[in-house]
Amino acid sequence: MESQCRPNVDGVHNGVESHVKVVEKPRSVGSSSEFVLRILGLLLTLIAAVVAGVDKQTKIIPLTLIKTLPSLHVPVTAKWSDMSAFVYLVVSNAIACSYAAISLVLVTMLGRRGKGGRVLAVIVLDLHMVGLLFSANGAATAVGVLGQYGNSHVEWKKVCNVFDSFCHHLVASLALSFLGSLSFLGLVLLAILNLHKKSSTK
Amino acid sequence: MESQCRPNVDGVHNGVESHVKVVEKPRSVGSSSEFVLRILGLLLTLIAAVVAGVDKQTKIIPLTLIKTLPSLHVPVTAKWSDMSAFVYLVVSNAIACSYAAISLVLVTMLGRRGKGGRVLAVIVLDLHMVGLLFSANGAATAVGVLGQYGNSHVEWKKVCNVFDSFCHHLVASLALSFLGSLSFLGLVLLAILNLHKKSSTK
Repeated sequence: MESQCRPNVDGVHNGVESHVKVVEKPRSVGSSSEFVLRILGLLLTLIAAVVAGVDKQTKIIPLTLIKTLPSLHVPVTAKWSDMSAFVYLVVSNAIACSYAAISLVLVTMLGRRGKGGRVLAVIVLDLHMVGLLFSANGAATAVGVLGQYGNSHVEWKKVCNVFDSFCHHLVASLALSFLGSLSFLGLVLLAILNLHKKSSTK
Repeated sequence: MESQCRPNVDGVHNGVESHVKVVEKPRSVGSSSEFVLRILGLLLTLIAAVVAGVDKQTKIIPLTLIKTLPSLHVPVTAKWSDMSAFVYLVVSNAIACSYAAISLVLVTMLGRRGKGGRVLAVIVLDLHMVGLLFSANGAATAVGVLGQYGNSHVEWKKVCNVFDSFCHHLVASLALSFLGSLSFLGLVLLAILNLHKKSSTK
């Protein structure tokens, strides 16, 4: 049976199985992929938060107060802060973006010298960002669907036929946020794969 | 410097460092915690899906067709299938519950003989359940908030003042679904901790 003897730290074998090929594994497999995913997560959540955060549209709506009198034309503005689900989307993306920036600095600074506990903390926080972003996407999408189609059962009328530009921007923000959350999901997947590889090959 | 020589599979040392204490690690640390979390995930998502799936309330609502005539009293029913976000909540919890049952059988059957690839597949699927459940929770909560408070900006009136029992059941389902998603989050966290422990102690 083949021996599993490893070299000492100074690179000298124990002198028994010199034929065993020793290949030094890099500390973090796929660290460039991690860097790309973290940058993507940062950019996508940043743009998603900005696109939703500046989303605003004013329309002149005809308003009938008394049937015998002509309609009044009043300006009505739709903005992201009118709906709690959109506020949640902006805040969640802002949190994820800030975290991505901090974790990017941390991961770059720690690099190969990174202690296990700190690396683990980053993975766990990545996982929490997945939960946060997916719930925000779900919330904003649910309200977006109501805005697009309305709901006759509760008599909630659709509004995207009036505020079309506002809705288009929101859809763009949602798509970016969804891609951003996939980046964080990718980061967790990558970390799991790396840990699994390390635990099974060591 | 101390040698890092490990024993062969048959337990025989290479005959150099017999003083090195060899402690056999269990294959999966915290497997009982995993079992409990998986059972919890199964039960919570099952009850959440059932509670939301049977949620239905009929109320007699006064309806005024012509102002000069007395109001008509018509029965109006609120049910989960009226709102796409609630359908998503029920379907997501049903998927997560079914997956929890299958994965429970798989994990129990595989046990210590489980191959690395299969164990990894279970962790990755657990992670996807986190994303699915958190997005469903977000969607249903966003619509639930609208049902509870309404939104004056888009003239969506609150409905929970009329369908109170329906809303209470939905809140219960949401709380259960949230706890269920925390169970899956716990499963992923546990898997990451186990893999990290294995990769650093081996």
